Amino acid sequence: MLTISKKGQEITASPIRKLIPLSDAAKKRGIQVYHLNIGQPDIETTSYALDAVKKYSEKVIKYSNSAGELSYRKKICKYYESLGINVTPEEIIVTTGGSEAIQMVFQTIMDPDDEVITPEPFYANYRSFAKITGVKIKSIPSDIKDGFALPPMSEFEKAITPKTKALLICNPNNPTGYLYSKEEMIQLGEIVKKHDIYLITDEVYREFCYDGAKHVSAMTLKGVENNVILIDSESKRYSACGIRVGRVVSKNKEVMSTVMKFAQARLSPPSYGQVAAEGALDTPASYFEGTVKEYTSRRNICVEGINKIPGAFCPTPKGAFYIVAHLPIDDSETFCKWLLTDFNYEGKTVMLAPACGFYSTPGRGVQEVRISYCLNCDALKEAMFLLEKALESYPGRVNE
Amino acid sequence: MLTISKKGQEITASPIRKLIPLSDAAKKRGIQVYHLNIGQPDIETTSYALDAVKKYSEKVIKYSNSAGELSYRKKICKYYESLGINVTPEEIIVTTGGSEAIQMVFQTIMDPDDEVITPEPFYANYRSFAKITGVKIKSIPSDIKDGFALPPMSEFEKAITPKTKALLICNPNNPTGYLYSKEEMIQLGEIVKKHDIYLITDEVYREFCYDGAKHVSAMTLKGVENNVILIDSESKRYSACGIRVGRVVSKNKEVMSTVMKFAQARLSPPSYGQVAAEGALDTPASYFEGTVKEYTSRRNICVEGINKIPGAFCPTPKGAFYIVAHLPIDDSETFCKWLLTDFNYEGKTVMLAPACGFYSTPGRGVQEVRISYCLNCDALKEAMFLLEKALESYPGRVNE
Repeated sequence: MLTISKKGQEITASPIRKLIPLSDAAKKRGIQVYHLNIGQPDIETTSYALDAVKKYSEKVIKYSNSAGELSYRKKICKYYESLGINVTPEEIIVTTGGSEAIQMVFQTIMDPDDEVITPEPFYANYRSFAKITGVKIKSIPSDIKDGFALPPMSEFEKAITPKTKALLICNPNNPTGYLYSKEEMIQLGEIVKKHDIYLITDEVYREFCYDGAKHVSAMTLKGVENNVILIDSESKRYSACGIRVGRVVSKNKEVMSTVMKFAQARLSPPSYGQVAAEGALDTPASYFEGTVKEYTSRRNICVEGINKIPGAFCPTPKGAFYIVAHLPIDDSETFCKWLLTDFNYEGKTVMLAPACGFYSTPGRGVQEVRISYCLNCDALKEAMFLLEKALESYPGRVNE
Repeated sequence: MLTISKKGQEITASPIRKLIPLSDAAKKRGIQVYHLNIGQPDIETTSYALDAVKKYSEKVIKYSNSAGELSYRKKICKYYESLGINVTPEEIIVTTGGSEAIQMVFQTIMDPDDEVITPEPFYANYRSFAKITGVKIKSIPSDIKDGFALPPMSEFEKAITPKTKALLICNPNNPTGYLYSKEEMIQLGEIVKKHDIYLITDEVYREFCYDGAKHVSAMTLKGVENNVILIDSESKRYSACGIRVGRVVSKNKEVMSTVMKFAQARLSPPSYGQVAAEGALDTPASYFEGTVKEYTSRRNICVEGINKIPGAFCPTPKGAFYIVAHLPIDDSETFCKWLLTDFNYEGKTVMLAPACGFYSTPGRGVQEVRISYCLNCDALKEAMFLLEKALESYPGRVNE
C-alpha cells in the first residue's frame, strides 16, 4: 500500500501557513492586505551582499566545503571577535539557514524521545524540527503579564528529567521580542552546568536590540563552553532571508565533529548564499544604527497602537521585530481568519499570526497574536488603525 | 551528561571523505593529485545560469515560496514537456539539492525501520539519508561481470517484506554509470505495481547518456503514476553543484502535500540557486551535444586505460560520469590510502573512491574503485598511466 509516514501525517503546517490561501483570496477580491504575519524584513538587503554576488566571477559553481567556505568562516570569526566572542573556523559549520542548523543539532545531541526544554511561546518551526527528528519539546510557559521574562529556574528544574538533553532559547525572542538580561543568561548557564546538559541558543536577531539594551550571548558565559551550541545567521540581520545560510557554532569538539558528519551527508551549503553572507559581513556597523532606529520607531507605533485599543495590551519588547499582543477576542485563529475572509475597512485589512501556533500548552495563546513589524511606519500606523476598527466589529469580541 | 545521539555516533563519513586529509597532506608534500574521486564536473557552469544571477536585480533577497518560485517550476514543466513528461507546477517541490529531496521523500513515505530496496552498489549518501531518517536500505547486488545490469526481478521479490515501502534507483547510476533499459524500467514498473509500493527514481544524470543510448524516465511508465517519485536537479546537468537546488516530482497528491509540510518547516530553498537553475533551463540543447561528446571521450580513455592494465577490468557504462572498476588489489580502501600516502610517480598520484562505500553487503567492493571522469582528456590519460604504474608497485597487489 502506498502509505504516508506517521511523521508526515502528524507534522502540521503552522497556523500562519494555513492563512496564506485566505490572504491570496482576499487580494483577488481587490482587498489590500497589510502583512504583519511574516518575519521577512522589507528593508533592502545590504548592498555588500548583493554586490558580492554580482562580482562573483567563478566559472564553475562547485560544491563548497561541507563546513562552509573557509574564507567565510574566517570572516565570521572576526565578526565574533568584535563581539568579544572567541571562536575558530573549526568551531563553525555553515548550514542551509538556521533551519538546517537546528535540525542538525537536534540530531547530533538527541535520540528519538529525548527532550529539549524551551520557554513558551516559542518559534513554531522548533516544533516541526522536533517532529522531524523525533525529539520532544517540553515548554515552560512565560507570561505576557511579565513581558515574557524567563520563567523562574524552579520551573526548569521541575521539568528536567533524565531524558532532557538541552535547553533551547531564542534571544532576542521570536515571537515575543523578549531580550534576556545578563542575570537571566547567567541563571541559564548555571542550570545547564548543574545538570550537565546543552544550551542551544538561537541568536539570529542579536543586532535587533532597542532602548540601548545590550545583547548577552550565551557564548560569553563562563564555565559552560562545552555546553553551549549557538545557532546563528546573517539572514535576518542583513535582510537576506532567501540566501538560506546559517550556522552551528560550538566549542564542543564532539558536537562539531558529529554535526560535520551530517553536513557531509548533504554535501554542502549553498555557494551563492555564502558569497552573499560573506559580503554582508563587510557592511559597516553604522548600517545597524539606521536599522535599529527604524525598527524602534516601528515597534513604538505598534506598542502604542495596541495599548490604546480597549481590551488589548502588549509589553514593550526590547529585541527582534515581533510583538505578542493580547486581544479581546474569543479565539485568535478564528479572528485571524475572519480578518481575511469577512473584514475590510475601505478595502483594506491586516494579516496577523495566531499565537496558538507558538504554544504547545493547550489553551494558551488563544487570545494572543504575533505582530511582526517588518513594514514601514506609515503602513504600520494604517495597520494599527485597521486592527482597532476590526476589533470594533469582530463578532467574537469578548468584554474583559 | 553531554551526550551524542546514537545516529550521530553511527553515521559515518564516506570512505572518500576519510581520504581528503591524506590528499591534502600529499599536496602539502608537493605531490600533484589527479582527482578521480569526486562527481564535481570541471566543465564550466552554463553561462545561462551565471548570467541570470548577475542580472538578478531584486533589492530584497526574500524567502521564496516553500515549494520553489512559481516561475521556475513553470519552466521545469516545459523542460519535462520536451522529454514527453507531463507535469504541473503543483507536482513539483523545489528542494535544497537532491540531498534534501531524498531525505524529504524518505520521511514522507517511511516510518523508522521501514525498508527501501535498491540495487547495489549504490550512491553512498543514500545510506546516510537512511540513517538520518531512521529507515533501512536493503540492497540487491548487481554484478560487475554483467556490467551492473538490473538484478533479476526474483531477487527483488525475495527481498520485499511488509516493511518495504519503496524501490530506489539511480538512473543513469552513480557509481556504476549503468543506464537502465526500457525493458528493465518496465519490469520495475510492474513490480512496484504488483506490490503497491513506491518507485523512487533519482535521474539527476539523465542527459549524460552515451553511444546513442536513450534515457527512459520512470515518469513515462504507464499505470504507476501514483507510485513514482522523481528526484531531479539541474546541478550535474549544467555543472552547477554549488547552487544546491533539486526537486521532488510526483503525480501522487498525498505525497506532494506531505513533502510540502516538510518543505514549509524549513521555509524555502535557496533564492540565488533557483535564479541560477531557472536561467540554466534556457541553455540550448546543443550544450549537451558538446558535453556528451566530451564525456564519451573521457569515458573511453578510462575504460581503455583500465582494461589494458593486467588484472583490472571494467564495463563500458552508457551513462553518468562514473565507472566502477575491478583492480587486482587486496583491499580498495588500503589501496586508495596508499596512493595518497606512499605512492607517487614523478611527483604525481591519483585519488580514487574505494567502492566498499557504495556497498552494504559485507565483503563486496573490496577489489573495486569508483572512477569519476570529471577531468579533461589529457589529465585522464595521465591518471590512467599513474594507476597502471601504481598497480605495478602496490604491495597489496594480488595475482588473479
